Amino acid sequence: MKIKVSRKEHFNAAHRLFNPAWSDEKNLEVFGKCSYPNYHGHNYEIIVTVTGEPDLNTGYVFDMKVLSDLIKENVLSKFDHKNLNLDTEYFKDLNPTAENIVVVIWKILREKIDRTLDLKITLYETERNFVEYPAA
Amino acid sequence: MKIKVSRKEHFNAAHRLFNPAWSDEKNLEVFGKCSYPNYHGHNYEIIVTVTGEPDLNTGYVFDMKVLSDLIKENVLSKFDHKNLNLDTEYFKDLNPTAENIVVVIWKILREKIDRTLDLKITLYETERNFVEYPAA
Amino acid sequence: MKIKVSRKEHFNAAHRLFNPAWSDEKNLEVFGKCSYPNYHGHNYEIIVTVTGEPDLNTGYVFDMKVLSDLIKENVLSKFDHKNLNLDTEYFKDLNPTAENIVVVIWKILREKIDRTLDLKITLYETERNFVEYPAA
Amino acid sequence: MKIKVSRKEHFNAAHRLFNPAWSDEKNLEVFGKCSYPNYHGHNYEIIVTVTGEPDLNTGYVFDMKVLSDLIKENVLSKFDHKNLNLDTEYFKDLNPTAENIVVVIWKILREKIDRTLDLKITLYETERNFVEYPAA
Amino acid sequence: MKIKVSRKEHFNAAHRLFNPAWSDEKNLEVFGKCSYPNYHGHNYEIIVTVTGEPDLNTGYVFDMKVLSDLIKENVLSKFDHKNLNLDTEYFKDLNPTAENIVVVIWKILREKIDRTLDLKITLYETERNFVEYPAA
Amino acid sequence: MKIKVSRKEHFNAAHRLFNPAWSDEKNLEVFGKCSYPNYHGHNYEIIVTVTGEPDLNTGYVFDMKVLSDLIKENVLSKFDHKNLNLDTEYFKDLNPTAENIVVVIWKILREKIDRTLDLKITLYETERNFVEYPAA
Repeated sequence: MKIKVSRKEHFNAAHRLFNPAWSDEKNLEVFGKCSYPNYHGHNYEIIVTVTGEPDLNTGYVFDMKVLSDLIKENVLSKFDHKNLNLDTEYFKDLNPTAENIVVVIWKILREKIDRTLDLKITLYETERNFVEYPAA
Repeated sequence: MKIKVSRKEHFNAAHRLFNPAWSDEKNLEVFGKCSYPNYHGHNYEIIVTVTGEPDLNTGYVFDMKVLSDLIKENVLSKFDHKNLNLDTEYFKDLNPTAENIVVVIWKILREKIDRTLDLKITLYETERNFVEYPAA
Repeated sequence: MKIKVSRKEHFNAAHRLFNPAWSDEKNLEVFGKCSYPNYHGHNYEIIVTVTGEPDLNTGYVFDMKVLSDLIKENVLSKFDHKNLNLDTEYFKDLNPTAENIVVVIWKILREKIDRTLDLKITLYETERNFVEYPAA
Repeated sequence: MKIKVSRKEHFNAAHRLFNPAWSDEKNLEVFGKCSYPNYHGHNYEIIVTVTGEPDLNTGYVFDMKVLSDLIKENVLSKFDHKNLNLDTEYFKDLNPTAENIVVVIWKILREKIDRTLDLKITLYETERNFVEYPAA
Repeated sequence: MKIKVSRKEHFNAAHRLFNPAWSDEKNLEVFGKCSYPNYHGHNYEIIVTVTGEPDLNTGYVFDMKVLSDLIKENVLSKFDHKNLNLDTEYFKDLNPTAENIVVVIWKILREKIDRTLDLKITLYETERNFVEYPAA
Repeated sequence: MKIKVSRKEHFNAAHRLFNPAWSDEKNLEVFGKCSYPNYHGHNYEIIVTVTGEPDLNTGYVFDMKVLSDLIKENVLSKFDHKNLNLDTEYFKDLNPTAENIVVVIWKILREKIDRTLDLKITLYETERNFVEYPAA
């Protein structure tokens, strides 16, 4: 009787898309205005989904208050009001596309949540652009 | 050629989280303000998803008006403007967590929808907390 | 150069509509399912709007973080996860309609915000029902 | 390491539900007000989801700007501000139910996106009615 | 102590923008794709706002259930699932722009609501286009 | 018969709050994480509201397509995917608080819209923080 439990949080961050192996012209050609040198930013919305069986004593698969705290302590504390390219260890050598950010967040939280529970992350970069990992 | 068809409805209800096998102190420790004795409440949003092949004559997998009526007659009539703990048979001995509510709703509607169609329920307790059953 | 600054917060509460001067039948006739005896509840959304001139040093009319804290300390602490009828002093003798709640919240916050600033409260009881005070 | 990438677009269109093999009475009986002869309409929201592995040079599974352009050129250009029954080749002999529209859109875009990438379409007819194809 | 009370409803309708005094070319030049001959459509959202003093016995300015019924009986019954140009008396000789629709709805409801109460209508044609009447 | 017509657009930008007359410590004390040196960012939503009488030939107060183009050419072209502090002339010596941004946008558009029409701007920095100018 597996149930999915999801908690939504958000963070505001600056970033730019950039491949250091390429010239500025090539970056502009590939990434367009997302590669502008002085950064732009987003209100990122993150949905963390945990799948498992409910505990018989609590009726919880995962306490959403605990899940919210886990996200705040491990993700928001690192990304909120930060420049993803300059202020985080994760994107020193990794382009902060939505795809790369969602995998980074999954890896951070995977360490903090029991392996008996499945974990999936959904990341909204804007209301109209979003990614999910893992896909299956 | 299977298609998912979803209908969203809502109900407003009061509840509290509480395990009668535990002391009030233990309940407060585990459930926090969700266990306050005089109840609180939510605008629950419920999404009912039916999966199947479209009928050749109608182009419908499931008439969404009929689906809406099924939800109103079998779920909203029992839960809307009610106290889930006190006014429903389902939560006399079951803690009304989002996880337990979503399974109860699934069981109610599973009886009303042909077994050739898959059924899944998504329940939003708040805009930021939601559950899905079954997970697969 | 007056600007309006708004901050949105939310609280989850139980309530029922009831006039103690009336019979149960009369209450049911007037308030319908909103008068059911065991309470129902809502995810209330509250928007607090402060109007004034921006400070030249900060560029703020009102620091939204301070505004958020004011709402949490003075409103959410009293109403969140509570039964409005039973757990609050404000609705012991006042029917907790959206209209009455919005005026109560305005009175609470009016005491906490400098009189040189105008104050308006918007309260969403559901996504489709909301009230604003004062109207002008 | 498969990731889902989604882009949301919208179009405004008129339609009516109608089976030409049936009498007007039968159509009204089955489709209700959706079969009114002079058409009604919707703000359709369409979410296109592409699943694959991120490119090592870009960090993209699929450039969302390119995905947006693909949707505009191949779907919105045909459906936006049109009468689905009268102005499109797709629904000359096919009832424009949400189920049939979502499959038509999937077939159009499947031709335009590399087969190494999975493709799924979600179509909102209203905020409360939506369909997804394929279901798996 | 005036309070604003608002109720949101919706209807789905087809329309086209067209001035019969103009040629088809002129209509296309002025109204663009909104003038396409076979109609397009929208999920219109309508917010009806009534302003007045709360009744001492009920705590209501206006019972939102009654307001909802008034909108359904007087507006939705005429416009929902209709072609505004062809199926309604109001737009036989009046272009169904959002501006004209909102004034028509205001005039319909103004007849049904006591003159001691102020009335304002907000109409969303899409999530990004909306109008309000009266402006003051 | 004045009507309000509103168009919503969005832009994504980086910024930081900072008063150059103050020390870094003082900036951090006053602006908190909004003053972090490497910038953060937002998905800004902007609503432009024009008030006037409808034209008898078109039924428009203001063509929303023209309004959308005006916003894109005069506001989005300057702010979208930019660093407000570094890339724009407006915030070289002005702290880019929501209050200051909304006034800047109003001044830009006031030059482009006929003075017989009233103009108001609403700016959402996040879903929970927004400002309006002018207030009256």
